[in-house]
Order: sequence, then C-alpha cells, then structure tokens
Amino acid sequence: MKICRFTVNNQIKTGVIDNEKVFSYENNQKLSDSYNLHEIKLLPPVEPSKIVCVGRNYAEHAAELGNAVPTEPLLFLKAPSALITDGEDILLPEQSNRVEHEGELALVIGRDCKNLADSVNALEYVFGYTILNDVTARDLQRADVQFTRAKSFDTFCPVASFIETDLDTTDIKLTTKVNGEIKQTGRTSQMVFNVDFLIRYISRQMSLKAGDVIATGTPSGVSQLKNGDVCEVEIEGIGKLSNPVKRAN
Amino acid sequence: MKICRFTVNNQIKTGVIDNEKVFSYENNQKLSDSYNLHEIKLLPPVEPSKIVCVGRNYAEHAAELGNAVPTEPLLFLKAPSALITDGEDILLPEQSNRVEHEGELALVIGRDCKNLADSVNALEYVFGYTILNDVTARDLQRADVQFTRAKSFDTFCPVASFIETDLDTTDIKLTTKVNGEIKQTGRTSQMVFNVDFLIRYISRQMSLKAGDVIATGTPSGVSQLKNGDVCEVEIEGIGKLSNPVKRAN
Repeated sequence: MKICRFTVNNQIKTGVIDNEKVFSYENNQKLSDSYNLHEIKLLPPVEPSKIVCVGRNYAEHAAELGNAVPTEPLLFLKAPSALITDGEDILLPEQSNRVEHEGELALVIGRDCKNLADSVNALEYVFGYTILNDVTARDLQRADVQFTRAKSFDTFCPVASFIETDLDTTDIKLTTKVNGEIKQTGRTSQMVFNVDFLIRYISRQMSLKAGDVIATGTPSGVSQLKNGDVCEVEIEGIGKLSNPVKRAN
Repeated sequence: MKICRFTVNNQIKTGVIDNEKVFSYENNQKLSDSYNLHEIKLLPPVEPSKIVCVGRNYAEHAAELGNAVPTEPLLFLKAPSALITDGEDILLPEQSNRVEHEGELALVIGRDCKNLADSVNALEYVFGYTILNDVTARDLQRADVQFTRAKSFDTFCPVASFIETDLDTTDIKLTTKVNGEIKQTGRTSQMVFNVDFLIRYISRQMSLKAGDVIATGTPSGVSQLKNGDVCEVEIEGIGKLSNPVKRAN
C-alpha cells in the first residue's frame, strides 16, 4: 500500500493512493470514500521526531568524496523543518555556492524501539519505505566539519509523497537524474550496512519512535544542483520523487 | 513565571510553578486550581521539533578541548529522544568510557520564525529560558568526528523541570557541580555569540518552530561523570537542574 498524508477542505488526513485516487485511511483501515488526486494537496507523508541519516554507506560514494568506508555506521541528524514533498521546490540558499543531490532509500519506523538485540528481525519495526533526497550544501559541509547546517536548510529534505508498506529492500535499484540525465545509480545490495543492521545499530544509540525516518545513504555520482534544474530520484518498487530547483529569495 | 508540563490523573497538563504549588495554565492564563508538587509528576517542559546546539561558544571551553573559537556559530542537533528532566537518571551507555557534563543556558522559541533580519529584536521570539545539560560521550565525539551519536544517547539531554519566562540573559552566572564540587563556572557575558545573535543566525540556516530549543554552549571545566555521581547545573535567575548518574543496563 502507498500511504499518504493530504489536506482536503482544510483538514489533514491520512490516505491510501490507489489508481489515481486517494482513499481515506483510518485505524489501519482503507475506507471506501475517495478523492481524485487533483482535488487534494499531498503533504510529506512523515512527521518524524527525528531524521537519522547514515553517511558513507556505499563504498563508491565514500571514495568519490575522498573518505574511507566507516567501520561502524556514521550517523547524523537532519532538521525536520527541512522536509518537503514531491513537486515542491528545493531552494538554493545564498550561503552556499555548491548544493548537491543525494538520492536515498529511507524507511519509516512503525513502532517505538530501543536496544534491539541481534536475534531480533528489525524489519518488523518498519512501517514502510520512501524516497529521500539528502540535499547537501557541499561547500558548507566541508567548511563546518559538522554536517548539520549543510544538510538542514529548509527544503533540503524532499521525500516522496507516500510510504510504500510492501517492499523487499534486499536488492533494488536507485537512480537519481538531473534534467533527465542519469547522475547516480546504485543497488541497495551495495550498502555497506543493510537496512536490518542499521535499525538495530541506531536503536542502540538512541530510542527510535514510531514515525522516525532513517535515510540509508547515497550511491556515487552526486552532482551540483543549479537554479532551473529538476532533480528526480527513482527507486524500484516505490516510484519517483521529483523536485524543481530554485534560488531562495 | 515558571511554566511546566506535568501529569496528574494520567493527563498531561501545562502549569505554573509558584510557591511549592503548580497552578493549571490554559490559553496563556494562570487558573486558580492548583496541585502540591508531590501530587504530580513533572515532565520535561519542552517538546521540541528540534534541539539546536551551539558548540565552542565560550572561548575557554573551546581552548580546553584544543579547538579554536569559530568565526560563525558551530551548530549541531541533539535527538529529542534524549530529553529527561530534573531528578531523572543520566545513564552511562556501555559504548563510551568517558561521559562528560556540559551545563548550558537554553532558550525555548515562542513563535515560528525564519530569516530574521539584523534589525529584528530576536528576543521577541523567545518563550523563555531553561537549564540544559548537553551530556556528551567525549570519546565517541572524538572518534566519530560528527557529534550526533556522542550527544544523542537516551538521557543525554536533561533540562530543568520548568521554563522561566522572565529573564535578562545579558550577564548571569552558570555553575555546574559534580557531587557538590564546582566544576564549571561562567557568565553569559562571556559567550562568543550572544542569545539575540544566535537566534537570528540560526533562523537563517533553518526555520525555527515554536517549542524548538536552542542550547547556547558551555563554559570551561567539563569533566567526567561516573556511576553514582550527582550532576547539578545552576543558572542565576532560573534555578537548578540536578541529575543522578547511573550505568545503563
């Protein structure tokens, strides 16, 4: 199922996207009343208490930025105020001269958890999967050392307009295009630490809450976004996330 | 006023602490019904969408860790899942061999804001002030380079049990004690970047939401916390934040 959040008649609702329609979804039930997609406004499908990102989780991407593959997952946080969804503008802040895309598979936690044991199947704590673009001001990331500012400008966290609840993430393809030209390609089987491992690992560093988002890292091929570009991230089995790029005023 | 959050009869309420009593507080009004402090359980007084921290904002502390004073505020995020309040245990995680206290003045944003201009009095966007202990696994902070994990373990963000709405932060004293012995002292007048500047600066990097917390940095004198210690942070005009230290299980 593709679960979304949307506004209609000034109300925020949860829905299921099916065949160009959005069905109301309440108490884990798909209801019969529906809306056409053009009648509603889709919102980011997540309202996380935190967005935990994993750096350097594809060996070729670590290498292209001159970094070694870490021996443990490298964690950082992105501010939730950076969230936008499909179709909304990525705004280039005046503080940076080089903003880049990082297309990633993201997962949404379904149940609070902490200190998950090795014997636990961490995938049971996943609500579903979505597409995330970990937009980064590369010049500020290098200058600040801490990734926080470079990755937390408003609009720097586009996510697809829905969460796909049914997906096997063992070996699926990720593609990021700019103006239709392929820039990043990778397969989730190339991750240094897989989804199951990452959830268990992160749950031992900090409690995970239902709704929290984990971004699982980006393949090689990151490149600069410029005013007027359109950046599109596609993940096999989920769909597409497309965002125009504009200068911030 | 000292604004708090508390539970009574399984309900979460907002209150005003006054003279050993907690008065209900609704729609910005102090009501006449009250509880004795021992009848209720105080909660962390904040529910932030993000906790933005400022590193190296006191020159002597930057120097004691071998760092230069930054030319712009150094920002990082702490996970909201790390929040606890006065009297609750700071838990030492098994991943770290050196956990340290960092007593800090924190402020709570009162109104959403972004891109505040130089001409704006940023203090008008403050709801109030509280005491925050930016507990840090110093060994992991050095090893990871990114501060995220070292500062986001559960219980690593104690805050006082109330927000003080009336305070002039120009030149007040901060003291951090371990087992009654003074470890850190400083005055807010020693900050490299003051509160007004910090809010404006951060609002230009990321939107601030009502309820967001900004921690303004720690003076010199950080030291290790050990099992059985009690760590106490006191700020003139606010009060005290006291937390026992235990090993995590």
